[in-house]
Amino acid sequence: MFYDLTVVQFTKMLNNLNSFLDKGAAFAETKKIDVNVLLNSRLAPDQFNLIRQVQIACDTAKLGVARLTGKVESAPVHADTETSLPELKARIQSVLDYLAGFSADDFAGAAERQVSQPRWEGKYLTGYEFAIQHAVPNIYFHVTTAYAILRHNGVDLGKKDFLGSLPYKN
Amino acid sequence: MFYDLTVVQFTKMLNNLNSFLDKGAAFAETKKIDVNVLLNSRLAPDQFNLIRQVQIACDTAKLGVARLTGKVESAPVHADTETSLPELKARIQSVLDYLAGFSADDFAGAAERQVSQPRWEGKYLTGYEFAIQHAVPNIYFHVTTAYAILRHNGVDLGKKDFLGSLPYKN
Repeated sequence: MFYDLTVVQFTKMLNNLNSFLDKGAAFAETKKIDVNVLLNSRLAPDQFNLIRQVQIACDTAKLGVARLTGKVESAPVHADTETSLPELKARIQSVLDYLAGFSADDFAGAAERQVSQPRWEGKYLTGYEFAIQHAVPNIYFHVTTAYAILRHNGVDLGKKDFLGSLPYKN
Repeated sequence: MFYDLTVVQFTKMLNNLNSFLDKGAAFAETKKIDVNVLLNSRLAPDQFNLIRQVQIACDTAKLGVARLTGKVESAPVHADTETSLPELKARIQSVLDYLAGFSADDFAGAAERQVSQPRWEGKYLTGYEFAIQHAVPNIYFHVTTAYAILRHNGVDLGKKDFLGSLPYKN
């Protein structure tokens, strides 16, 4: 279940985020505005801008899976230097490629693993707590915030863009 | 795990949402503005306002759990008539009280249950798909959007307000 909750769903959300950016780029072109205006937008002066929301969504996916599976050393390193749309999309693709290398078997023991981050100063959560209470809420938070920044600026996004396709059955 | 992913975490998020509203009310009082201005705010003209975001977050929690456990008939009915802060907070409390009646045992068979909604016109998802791909993303979407509306209007909210307390261990 952890694999579906994280790798599969984070992959879907990063692909959706990629589509938000494409819709933003198309909107900017139609409106004849610089797409960088959107990339540097934020909803409050002390909120991270769209570029940073995308970077954090990527890190939440990448490091969430890496920490749950005990493979932090294998994660690609990103210096948070993206300033353009192509660079942001490449960042997303890099994480998608990384996630594609995981399988459900990699999550054996993940629930009991002690997961920590540098900013937690030595404290930890179990993998079970980390996945449910930290990684999952965080990725949706940053993808929704990216969505909201674009939505606020007029980009035509809706709930279906956020959820992506669902496997409805008859 | 479904119990922790839904009942426990949805309870936490609704409590956090309640705190966002309290912070919004305190902000309005300090600024000497009508709190209803915040409740009726939105980030785009065709986006649901804060009242509706709270209503949908409540329904996502209530109906998500009710559908996964096969107990839709037991769910409290809400007519979406709230217009004031006390009414919205009462709505949240009603769902919190409802969620408090569930235990992990109620989720036996939830993963295989066929879950549907009126708008799906007879189509369904398995409970497993519904929980991971629909209910969980949706609640974070609407709680984050409520957060973003308040944040955009100047209310002092941060990531800790969104995530709530975490069970860090030494």
